[in-house]
Amino acid sequence: MTLPGLSNGPATSIPGGRERVLRLHSYWRSSSAYRVRIALNLKGLEYETVPLHLLRDGGEQLAAGYLARNPQGLVPLLEHDGGNFTQSLAIIEYLDELYAEAPLLPATPAARARVRALAHLIADDIQPINNLRVLQYLKHDLGVDDAERDAWYVHWVTAGLTAFEKLLSENPATGDFCHGNAPGLADLCLVPQVYNAERYHCDLDAWPTIRRITRACRALSAFERAAPENQPDAV
Amino acid sequence: MTLPGLSNGPATSIPGGRERVLRLHSYWRSSSAYRVRIALNLKGLEYETVPLHLLRDGGEQLAAGYLARNPQGLVPLLEHDGGNFTQSLAIIEYLDELYAEAPLLPATPAARARVRALAHLIADDIQPINNLRVLQYLKHDLGVDDAERDAWYVHWVTAGLTAFEKLLSENPATGDFCHGNAPGLADLCLVPQVYNAERYHCDLDAWPTIRRITRACRALSAFERAAPENQPDAV
Repeated sequence: MTLPGLSNGPATSIPGGRERVLRLHSYWRSSSAYRVRIALNLKGLEYETVPLHLLRDGGEQLAAGYLARNPQGLVPLLEHDGGNFTQSLAIIEYLDELYAEAPLLPATPAARARVRALAHLIADDIQPINNLRVLQYLKHDLGVDDAERDAWYVHWVTAGLTAFEKLLSENPATGDFCHGNAPGLADLCLVPQVYNAERYHCDLDAWPTIRRITRACRALSAFERAAPENQPDAV
Repeated sequence: MTLPGLSNGPATSIPGGRERVLRLHSYWRSSSAYRVRIALNLKGLEYETVPLHLLRDGGEQLAAGYLARNPQGLVPLLEHDGGNFTQSLAIIEYLDELYAEAPLLPATPAARARVRALAHLIADDIQPINNLRVLQYLKHDLGVDDAERDAWYVHWVTAGLTAFEKLLSENPATGDFCHGNAPGLADLCLVPQVYNAERYHCDLDAWPTIRRITRACRALSAFERAAPENQPDAV
């Protein structure tokens, strides 16, 4: 299913066709955007970054121009082939279906279900509850103070990653990475979540498998280049 | 990829093999379990329900026996072919890969990405923020009162479904259902979310496309039989 017009090189105009550029609307610290950046890098795909500052001017993701692309007003968004693709996991599955090289999911349905479940544990049950807009609601609408907000953050990270650690450590399918010996969908969710956990001073010592796999991922260029501090909009 | 041992009839023992029963650990009001029930019904798969009461005895999903299957302590969980499958969307993709009939995703990568994004909008950005454990944390740890909790609930439903409505109404791929004229992954996320929205008295009038599609889904036996009030553990 690889599109012939898109190589690993820079975006090209196809005669008679649309420009098949990959353009990622991103914020350097968004862990959802971070996942997609890793996926693009693992696939060896060149892309352009369109930075949005989530805190400036009330949030650039809420400007009319961006809302016309994504009514949710959230990053990331991937422009490709005339379409606006939203939701990080949906974007990553899309890329995995289009570009067969460096598969992000294993081959069998049961193994794919395991990896997807690990990804969802983070993408559904940790990250959205700790997302910026939720923290803002806690503060502005419920009057939660900074210490309570931090405790909230750590609570959901701890609940999620404690279960994640068990699912890794008790399953022989875990290898150098979350599933086997190549990085995939679960790893590219894990590393941004660990980045967030570190920002909020969560104690990672209780999760040795997570720490080992995170180290292995961070040693790879695809993860390194996707890291928040290496983005053009990092401050 | 259909398993020859599993028909639409009751669970059978396969000579020399494991029992290929489908057993769903479920709670009648869990919208995540509701999604999986719809998927099983759309596929025409027989399954056994193992009810867990999320509020009795501190939550049956937190009992040691269940945590051994799912360290997250959340429903649903599908037992199949010796495995414990967690996370509703991962379970549904697993079923869709194993059983080709009544596909829950469209054929092309771009269309699949659209449907997955709609599903994730609900499964990631509405439901987890309004999940029982989060509402309990708001009450018990942050002292939020019932009116504030209800406002919280309605806020995230409204933010999510307002965007969902735009994504439906502005896209010609929307048909009788969220994508085209057959129910699929987005619909089986939408209907349980609408059920929850109604419980919390959200105003659905602002979302005519959502209302129309929900009506179309509810007219189908697969959705009807999956409804909370029709579960063996409904009270």
